[in-house]
Amino acid sequence: MVFKLNNHLLSMIASGNGHGEDSPYFEGWKAYDSNPHHPMENPNGIIQMGLAENQLCFDLIQDWLKNNPKASICTHEGVNEFREIAIFQDYHGLPEFRNAVAKFMAKVRGNKVTFDPDRVVMNGGATGAHETVAFCLADPGEAFLVPTPYYPGFDRDLRWRTGVKLIPVVSESSNNFKVTREALENAYEMAKLDNIKVKGLLINNPSNPLGTILDRETLRSIVRFINEKNIHLVCDEIYAATVFSQPEFISIAEIVQEDIECNLNLVHIVYSLSKDMGFPGLRVGIIYSYNDAVVSCARKMSSFGLVSSQTQYMIASMLSDDEFVGKFIRESKTRLAARHGVFTDGLAQVSIKCLKTSNAGLFLWMDLSGLLKEKTFEAEMALWRVIIHEVKLNVSPGCSFHCTEPGWFRVCFANMDDQTMQVALSRIRTFVNKDVDTKKPKRTLRWQGSLKLSSPRIYDDFINSPRSPLPQSPLVLARN
Amino acid sequence: MVFKLNNHLLSMIASGNGHGEDSPYFEGWKAYDSNPHHPMENPNGIIQMGLAENQLCFDLIQDWLKNNPKASICTHEGVNEFREIAIFQDYHGLPEFRNAVAKFMAKVRGNKVTFDPDRVVMNGGATGAHETVAFCLADPGEAFLVPTPYYPGFDRDLRWRTGVKLIPVVSESSNNFKVTREALENAYEMAKLDNIKVKGLLINNPSNPLGTILDRETLRSIVRFINEKNIHLVCDEIYAATVFSQPEFISIAEIVQEDIECNLNLVHIVYSLSKDMGFPGLRVGIIYSYNDAVVSCARKMSSFGLVSSQTQYMIASMLSDDEFVGKFIRESKTRLAARHGVFTDGLAQVSIKCLKTSNAGLFLWMDLSGLLKEKTFEAEMALWRVIIHEVKLNVSPGCSFHCTEPGWFRVCFANMDDQTMQVALSRIRTFVNKDVDTKKPKRTLRWQGSLKLSSPRIYDDFINSPRSPLPQSPLVLARN
Ligand SMILES: Cc1ncc(COP(=O)(O)O)c(C=O)c1O
Ligand SMILES: Cc1ncc(COP(=O)(O)O)c(C=O)c1O
Repeated sequence: MVFKLNNHLLSMIASGNGHGEDSPYFEGWKAYDSNPHHPMENPNGIIQMGLAENQLCFDLIQDWLKNNPKASICTHEGVNEFREIAIFQDYHGLPEFRNAVAKFMAKVRGNKVTFDPDRVVMNGGATGAHETVAFCLADPGEAFLVPTPYYPGFDRDLRWRTGVKLIPVVSESSNNFKVTREALENAYEMAKLDNIKVKGLLINNPSNPLGTILDRETLRSIVRFINEKNIHLVCDEIYAATVFSQPEFISIAEIVQEDIECNLNLVHIVYSLSKDMGFPGLRVGIIYSYNDAVVSCARKMSSFGLVSSQTQYMIASMLSDDEFVGKFIRESKTRLAARHGVFTDGLAQVSIKCLKTSNAGLFLWMDLSGLLKEKTFEAEMALWRVIIHEVKLNVSPGCSFHCTEPGWFRVCFANMDDQTMQVALSRIRTFVNKDVDTKKPKRTLRWQGSLKLSSPRIYDDFINSPRSPLPQSPLVLARN
Repeated sequence: MVFKLNNHLLSMIASGNGHGEDSPYFEGWKAYDSNPHHPMENPNGIIQMGLAENQLCFDLIQDWLKNNPKASICTHEGVNEFREIAIFQDYHGLPEFRNAVAKFMAKVRGNKVTFDPDRVVMNGGATGAHETVAFCLADPGEAFLVPTPYYPGFDRDLRWRTGVKLIPVVSESSNNFKVTREALENAYEMAKLDNIKVKGLLINNPSNPLGTILDRETLRSIVRFINEKNIHLVCDEIYAATVFSQPEFISIAEIVQEDIECNLNLVHIVYSLSKDMGFPGLRVGIIYSYNDAVVSCARKMSSFGLVSSQTQYMIASMLSDDEFVGKFIRESKTRLAARHGVFTDGLAQVSIKCLKTSNAGLFLWMDLSGLLKEKTFEAEMALWRVIIHEVKLNVSPGCSFHCTEPGWFRVCFANMDDQTMQVALSRIRTFVNKDVDTKKPKRTLRWQGSLKLSSPRIYDDFINSPRSPLPQSPLVLARN
């Protein structure tokens, strides 16, 4: 007897592609996976610059672990705690964990604000935290505004299983991609015309992919906007500790404690240790809400994505070591600043500009619009393919972040060692110099050649959709 | 300026009570929390017998950890792996983890079946796994059949955020709560009359709360049923390794590899290390589906509830140690059998019967119907309150499992040491003897007294709803 797979057997969610993985960006991952760079074994392989990972300070972490064997329930020194921790399953989390996280969140924000451990709700990474917040705040069909360019994971996390919509708020290079009141109003009015109920505004500060932070005036204007409209404000601050130079990071927590009119029930922070500590594998996500009902509901929902108690225990010990945390945060900023400096200087030598207001994050927002054949996203994708297949760097094209101006690329710089970064830099320099030397017609031809390699359908899929699927590899989904 | 909390600000899910925590069973947790038993410090406190935890073999685990320091990324011996593991975030999981889990699942099933590591999808406990399966298989409003009595967490896990319905399939004490074809057909037809589309059948084998396993004939009849109806079969086998005496456990994996007509695309197993290993805090849940599309979709959804890579690494090492695993499974069964024996014998001395077909699980299904004032759930709740407040044992009333016959109680026996179990037994004996000595009117009066303590609304809420909220403490939700 032969059975056919009947699609009605599965849910609409399972039959659809809201997960966003049927995206053209797969090409970059596939290319990297089949030919990854290795300094000795594969020096001509592709360098992975599409991962917003923070790998610069693991020596500090590993030293700390060696000196603190009691931090683990799997060491001689800590194993007597194993039983109690392995059976611990309270969705409030270990009290030590919540306290340590609350303290860490304050420290990362220069101790200008405090966080109440009782409002700290854990979840499976910021990924799980975002979905949970969306489930708490909006019904299917309702929407959040999101300034562009934005982290493509939002399309999956806030929308896929919740049925919630995202509406882009356009920002532009002419003012360094600032979020303006005008753009917010525009997006809000557009939604109204479409009969879509806007439930909130999602901001990401510091921004992935821009590497910029929001200034105080912008933050205040955002708070005024959401209060006037009576909609929620979700602030993803998972890059808070990566602000490596002046001006300093200003958390939304600082703004709402200012003398500003604000309904605190509307304000929610999403946080995680994936970027600031560099632990994406440990899946430590945090929702910090000023709204009691959201704290309570999110905590119940956290049952679907609790942090492993083994990990809670280790993190609690690590983050409650004040001296270590202070040193780690300082050193991490220093190393990020150095890396950022070397990289931008290297690019400047061949006249490549990056968004100059960037002073945070694990990436640069690189302007290659001057190298585009024409000012279109097709040309951006063509250039992207050249960068992957010829320059052999897996960077991310701006369109994957819903950027509305072609020619921008996000380049991650903290997921590799110094040597690899130098290789990457020299490849870029060689490419640009060669490209400048080459006459226009030739360059055009070469790019058109690359273009032909892929089916035009891929472009259509992508370019036609302002809220297109996210650029993630089916192989390594959550890394971005 | 004063702001009022506007309920429309939140989602319908957040405003509703689908989380199931507004339940009368909270009383038991509250009583336990405010007066927990301790052999020295509070010998007259309440003994917690409402937690299906497996605490009998932690000595073996702790010994293993001491002998295997490389299993942890937080030991001197293992710390060099820390960086690689902390940044590992592939939703396929560590290959070693998937392999070890697949091997373990086979071993637990007597190696009569094998599992393909590529079909092993991780998730945040069986809790997350169930929700994910529901999201994959059914649209809002569609339903799963579930034989009663059943684990109350299903009401939250499968329904709350998915909008999926559960329809009880009634089983009865007269045939030891067996799942019959007739009852399945009845429930299916009832759903049809209500215009509800049945998408699947959820079984829990071994059963919480019954402690029974399904025999081969019942399993075959279930497979025939779901194939005839072309609906899914989700088998929660998280108590697989707790089968401590003959007959042996038969996994659905064994049935579908028999010479039986079965569309494998319909069959999905949910598993977890919370019960068999006793690690609920580590949140290791597994979906094993024979349906490729479900594997692929569930894996994408697992982004919301990945297992901490630190925990994956440790579990991979532990479960790939064949000798240890063999010894652990054997020893665990031996200790569960002994505990079960002592407990049932102790109850038999005062003529309390338990479901006699039980040979699995971490609990007994105790028949106190003879002690009910009348054969109603009000009387069951009254007796339950006496057991909590006077006998000082926090057990779980049958109605919390949607049992359709009053008088049954689930009593967990593996979450305490021998001494505490003896205290619990002697309390039960004292109570029953006293109760037998006391004349009827007096007993009735006392119980009515207890009844008055709580508002009748609580009963109404609960008794009127066949799919009532789950009995979980807001304090310690996930423990059950
Ligand atoms: C802005 C932003 N939010 C959320 C996430 C997801 O983080 P997590 O690993 O904590 O799920 C990322 C990861 O790249 C991100 O850049
Ligand atoms: C039958 C059943 N399924 C699922 C669960 C949830 O298990 P986990 O801790 O893996 O989420 C439980 C917990 O009691 C259970 O008894």
